[in-house]
Amino acid sequence: MSTRIPFDEVKATVKKALLNLGLSEEDAELCATIHTQSSADGVESHGLNRIPRFADYVQKGWVDVKAEPELVGKKGAAENYDGHRGIGVKNAVICADRAMELAKEHGIGLVALRNTTHWMRGGAYAWRMAEKGFLGISWINTESCMPMWGSDEPGVGNNPFCIAIPREKGPIVVDMAMSQYAYGKLGVYRLAGKQLPYPGGFDENGNLTTDPGAIEKTGRILPTGYWKGTSLAIALDMAAAMIANGFCGTDMDIQAKGSCSGCCQIFIAIDPYMFGGKEELQAMLDKRVAAADATHPIDPKHPVRCPGESTVARREKSMKDGVNVDESVWAQVQNLAAGKMDVEDISGVVIQKKV
Amino acid sequence: MSTRIPFDEVKATVKKALLNLGLSEEDAELCATIHTQSSADGVESHGLNRIPRFADYVQKGWVDVKAEPELVGKKGAAENYDGHRGIGVKNAVICADRAMELAKEHGIGLVALRNTTHWMRGGAYAWRMAEKGFLGISWINTESCMPMWGSDEPGVGNNPFCIAIPREKGPIVVDMAMSQYAYGKLGVYRLAGKQLPYPGGFDENGNLTTDPGAIEKTGRILPTGYWKGTSLAIALDMAAAMIANGFCGTDMDIQAKGSCSGCCQIFIAIDPYMFGGKEELQAMLDKRVAAADATHPIDPKHPVRCPGESTVARREKSMKDGVNVDESVWAQVQNLAAGKMDVEDISGVVIQKKV
Repeated sequence: MSTRIPFDEVKATVKKALLNLGLSEEDAELCATIHTQSSADGVESHGLNRIPRFADYVQKGWVDVKAEPELVGKKGAAENYDGHRGIGVKNAVICADRAMELAKEHGIGLVALRNTTHWMRGGAYAWRMAEKGFLGISWINTESCMPMWGSDEPGVGNNPFCIAIPREKGPIVVDMAMSQYAYGKLGVYRLAGKQLPYPGGFDENGNLTTDPGAIEKTGRILPTGYWKGTSLAIALDMAAAMIANGFCGTDMDIQAKGSCSGCCQIFIAIDPYMFGGKEELQAMLDKRVAAADATHPIDPKHPVRCPGESTVARREKSMKDGVNVDESVWAQVQNLAAGKMDVEDISGVVIQKKV
Repeated sequence: MSTRIPFDEVKATVKKALLNLGLSEEDAELCATIHTQSSADGVESHGLNRIPRFADYVQKGWVDVKAEPELVGKKGAAENYDGHRGIGVKNAVICADRAMELAKEHGIGLVALRNTTHWMRGGAYAWRMAEKGFLGISWINTESCMPMWGSDEPGVGNNPFCIAIPREKGPIVVDMAMSQYAYGKLGVYRLAGKQLPYPGGFDENGNLTTDPGAIEKTGRILPTGYWKGTSLAIALDMAAAMIANGFCGTDMDIQAKGSCSGCCQIFIAIDPYMFGGKEELQAMLDKRVAAADATHPIDPKHPVRCPGESTVARREKSMKDGVNVDESVWAQVQNLAAGKMDVEDISGVVIQKKV
């Protein structure tokens, strides 16, 4: 069951919970804003729903709330940071912002972050770059939570890839896991008692299924585009580990400290106006979006939309009517805010290859 | 029907055909090598099969074989070239090489190419970067040849995205169109009289089908991962046009000069050893590939492989036993080499949104 709670109330409650976990005032404010914004944008799986898991990881010592990211390498337009297992959201924000600074100077900027923790909603940093006027690309590597194509046991992360276009009338943002559905999304459907709209993985009999719980049980999530999803996932894993000089998925499997602990993240920012005029390029984007949106819909009740357009609409509704929250998750976050620090992570199963 | 012809014979015949089309000795050598290599690697769709279409485009004046790419913008680690509708393969090679030069200096290099023509096999340039020791990312925008998710008419290109990891024991390379199958691949199956292994689009009754010809007829190719494929495709289109200050897909639709004429291409090269040691990083890659390949296969006859590994095996077979060629395509290329310049493009249907 879900209900709507005003944005400011959600944010204040999350912030209190984070302060109770030992975050500084500044870090709690930043993380509360990003988690609440994610839920407000419709990405509850990595917004409010992840607070109990974050609390669990902090209490287990898997996230060090006092750590600061450290510059450990630099070459021209590229920098390498060690996240020291600090707060994933904070590390990612700092690195995305640094990529934009580098892009201002060099046209393109790359920041490779290693030894960090879960960044929650992957698209948060691409959105941030687009909203600040940069073209953004980012990705992460994770522990092995998806079978390689042709296998029936986890062998690769579902390594989300994000790309964002700074369109002033509303950014166009893609935030896609390499599984057809992220585990967080499976959790959202399970909590709501719903079936997936399309098959999202295999059940214990090896049949494709729309039952989120059955997929969580086998860990056999379907890759995006069959073999394509796992091909891109394994390449993104190796690219992240190679550039950031950090953990690949296998290293996270061996360590077995939950989701994304010690992972690498890549942030690329590009100055979109270095070769063309802003006015002309913005007009081009508007024309392109309009042309795509004007294509003939199969069902007239569902007009075609570019990625990010419906997010803006959802955000507006959340600001007006309140943020949609799962009641059981909300109760847990309220407990954390009240200083009751026992939590149960119900946001989604964490699957990890047994090594 | 297909047959195997020695690599050198295929290359020499393609080269003669290209010389007959007015290419310089040097350009004909480069393009013949790349087309033949693509077929030898198993990507016939964009290797030998594209020679008749290339000949057609040259004769229509859509490709200017005398044009040279021109540097039209520069900022730090980024450069912008105008391809002047020259030979797509040549323009792309020059820009990929330039991106690597920029990466040597700045850690990362970006080259944005506009107003170029079809680059044939997208992965050719990622492979090139990986074989020269760089981590490579590249993509292209195309005319609208795929319906946006929820539409039944073409609205976006299938904009291939490539990423390559410079593994010394064999590069790991992903070359993926945002449709489940590229039109060139549909053409390969149709020419061979085969059905696709998985549904690849919709027939005229709106049903998913494995019949390549039925999909070519409707132009309703299935996006990779349903909504995900068209979301990434439209973002890649806008990103390419914005960075390169060139055509977006809609501009190509209006112009209606075939596939990819006037398109943009992005080449990003990254120095993979700027933050980590080469020996350690290569060991990490080998370990990662071995772990993925060792995961339990559903069918023991089909062990798990990382992308690019089977390409190397196919290449070796082609060098030993000859390059696999479709006989009807081969006859056409032989005709071109003999100076008979009438061609029929049977490599794949070119779908374009009617505007």
